[in-house]
Amino acid sequence: MSPDLIARAVRILNSNGIMHKSGHVAARDDGAPHVMWINSRQASRSSVTAKDIVRIDLRTGASVGGGDEPPSESDIHRSIFNRRPDVGAIVHSHPRYIVALSVADQPLVPVTIDGGFIGGPAPTFDDARHINTPERGDLLAGALGDRNLVVLRGHGVVVTGRNVEEAVTRIVHAESNAQAQYLALALGALHPLGAEELAAINRTTSSDKALQKAFAYEEETARRAGAFDD
Amino acid sequence: MSPDLIARAVRILNSNGIMHKSGHVAARDDGAPHVMWINSRQASRSSVTAKDIVRIDLRTGASVGGGDEPPSESDIHRSIFNRRPDVGAIVHSHPRYIVALSVADQPLVPVTIDGGFIGGPAPTFDDARHINTPERGDLLAGALGDRNLVVLRGHGVVVTGRNVEEAVTRIVHAESNAQAQYLALALGALHPLGAEELAAINRTTSSDKALQKAFAYEEETARRAGAFDD
Amino acid sequence: MSPDLIARAVRILNSNGIMHKSGHVAARDDGAPHVMWINSRQASRSSVTAKDIVRIDLRTGASVGGGDEPPSESDIHRSIFNRRPDVGAIVHSHPRYIVALSVADQPLVPVTIDGGFIGGPAPTFDDARHINTPERGDLLAGALGDRNLVVLRGHGVVVTGRNVEEAVTRIVHAESNAQAQYLALALGALHPLGAEELAAINRTTSSDKALQKAFAYEEETARRAGAFDD
Amino acid sequence: MSPDLIARAVRILNSNGIMHKSGHVAARDDGAPHVMWINSRQASRSSVTAKDIVRIDLRTGASVGGGDEPPSESDIHRSIFNRRPDVGAIVHSHPRYIVALSVADQPLVPVTIDGGFIGGPAPTFDDARHINTPERGDLLAGALGDRNLVVLRGHGVVVTGRNVEEAVTRIVHAESNAQAQYLALALGALHPLGAEELAAINRTTSSDKALQKAFAYEEETARRAGAFDD
Repeated sequence: MSPDLIARAVRILNSNGIMHKSGHVAARDDGAPHVMWINSRQASRSSVTAKDIVRIDLRTGASVGGGDEPPSESDIHRSIFNRRPDVGAIVHSHPRYIVALSVADQPLVPVTIDGGFIGGPAPTFDDARHINTPERGDLLAGALGDRNLVVLRGHGVVVTGRNVEEAVTRIVHAESNAQAQYLALALGALHPLGAEELAAINRTTSSDKALQKAFAYEEETARRAGAFDD
Repeated sequence: MSPDLIARAVRILNSNGIMHKSGHVAARDDGAPHVMWINSRQASRSSVTAKDIVRIDLRTGASVGGGDEPPSESDIHRSIFNRRPDVGAIVHSHPRYIVALSVADQPLVPVTIDGGFIGGPAPTFDDARHINTPERGDLLAGALGDRNLVVLRGHGVVVTGRNVEEAVTRIVHAESNAQAQYLALALGALHPLGAEELAAINRTTSSDKALQKAFAYEEETARRAGAFDD
Repeated sequence: MSPDLIARAVRILNSNGIMHKSGHVAARDDGAPHVMWINSRQASRSSVTAKDIVRIDLRTGASVGGGDEPPSESDIHRSIFNRRPDVGAIVHSHPRYIVALSVADQPLVPVTIDGGFIGGPAPTFDDARHINTPERGDLLAGALGDRNLVVLRGHGVVVTGRNVEEAVTRIVHAESNAQAQYLALALGALHPLGAEELAAINRTTSSDKALQKAFAYEEETARRAGAFDD
Repeated sequence: MSPDLIARAVRILNSNGIMHKSGHVAARDDGAPHVMWINSRQASRSSVTAKDIVRIDLRTGASVGGGDEPPSESDIHRSIFNRRPDVGAIVHSHPRYIVALSVADQPLVPVTIDGGFIGGPAPTFDDARHINTPERGDLLAGALGDRNLVVLRGHGVVVTGRNVEEAVTRIVHAESNAQAQYLALALGALHPLGAEELAAINRTTSSDKALQKAFAYEEETARRAGAFDD
């Protein structure tokens, strides 16, 4: 983890259309597990750099080390990091098909090889308001439970990972799966992955090599689209 | 307000797909409230500059200060500015999902955090003809009433704001909301925002800081896409 | 009319997604009304230049003046030019929403201000085969009759105009209208333009000034997208 | 066939959105019919070069001549090449509309002039798991039979050709046809190509000249989009 990795992750997600004006990538500090790093509130998601990545104390919610104002929804990340020691990074954004399914009250379910990590019908947080209080952060973390992602109806999604690379590739894959699910539902039929398929697909896609390849692809694609040009 | 801001606003909306060959951004003159500035009829929306921004007397509809011909639909803006002293800027364009909903006789309703400012089912003007007479302008302004936007069936939308930045970001958010609404309706279900959600979301998104961030993002995105290269 | 204009028109339509590997723009020779100019069979639609524009004698179908092989479907254009002295230019391509409507056996109808020129439900040629014989060309011209466009089921569309600029902008507007119609139909409802709306819209959009503006916009957009870079 | 052609083919498919982080293009060695060439497992699909193309012995599945690790799903290609001496090249990827149709349990059928080569309802392999064992490769090859493509439900598609150019253009055309089919099905109606239409269209589109034109177009489009810039 490094502030530079978070900044590149935000630009990658902005470049591939998963993130727009808002949204954040947060990561636990490797050396100080009660501290998280996150992109600041105002810095543009298309031009954020390492100096726009700020720190928050997970115990108090207070800023550490100065810098720009944290995002108004930083309690999303604080509540989850505090409940889930296995989580090293979290992405929050508002991808179009995940949001559309939620507005139609359709739970996100795994239907393609990209979506295996979803594991089964995803939990949905049935409140569209911004997560800008500690109380709402805790409610959201409760809705997430021990899963890899939670959908926020009319709002977006929160995805967890062991590290930034995993959280970033998972949100890309979640949206890809959501698009396939959406398109199939619009035809009136849906064939979700079965238990045996889920198990086999997750064995294949959860390796370090698969993760490294997926993240490198996203980064290279963003680089070619000019996302890192300053 | 400045002619340059209007020109940049038009290029931003052309770059992000909200505006195409037609459409306008109009703003009330800060020092002369009975005068509005607006992009001219013929200037290409992708290459308009400050010198293509013309002035109209809101009392008479006459051009002020010369320059290119005003748009054929400038009565949209004149009628609204005359009825709504709270309005400082107006955008008219033809975004695809807002138009599609209107062709299906579906009122635009707020369903996501982007759409909170819509406030409730949006008024629809049930006449697809161009607004190229003072009479039609007044009818449209009547349909708008005290709302933030009015949909023109088979045609487009008109969005108001306190200033150019607000009107521009609002039309972007209206189309984003329309897309989510459209996609959900195609699945046969729609979960609109409730009253408590609307109130909370609007408190969060109506701040100057939120507006500044949203407009800066649109501008930066357009800049990176080459919209300001000449 | 000039070979260079046809080449630019093809690149414009390739750049905005209306034309892909196939499709043609044809124009009647200003000085020799029994001769048409058309882009050649093999020249790539993204890099065609004036030297790839060939001539055909409308009376015999024979090539005039040498150059590359004409398109295999040049009988589309020959049959229509021979029956319709009012037509100065013709575009044939395969836009996605027009084709999708035809595969669903839905006639294209005018629903937005862009689609006024369609005039009413468009004729459909119910044969997906390529128009690569004089007989099929004549059947297609018969299906077109005195209209501005004819849809080819499972294949594409043929659009006429007084000149290249009009035929090009009309196919862009036809596809824009088709998209709005498609999206509305997917919601199960459709509000077509009424007779009074059609008349008023066509008065507004058929002027030379409106045509000039629409074509200039398409050309400027293509230029900014690099379509004319060699 | 050359390693450079395979590398360009992968970049073409990545550039036009048919391929993303995974997928492969494989070709039989012209001089050694029991050897295939294929892009390696880890090389990014957007920047692959000839040195990332590796060889596999079709009899044993063993790597030939060293280099990077082959893809985990290389048994797709090995099983098909072993059963189908007429096949010179194979593409595997995960195009969005083909996948969406499969998730809705809708067989891919030819509906447009692009899809003629599909010939009739395409076979579907009803197992979403990766094809990463020789046994699964053989089952998939059996499902393909003597057809030109087989759909993998919730996963993707495998398309064959006489050579790389044909396999590449066929997968592009299959996805184009799938999109038209999808859009029509979402309106609740579908008009597939009839037998006479299929025969005529395939006569027209199967010529060497048509293939050369289609591949050259894809390559030129990718080149203009910067896919070959390094």
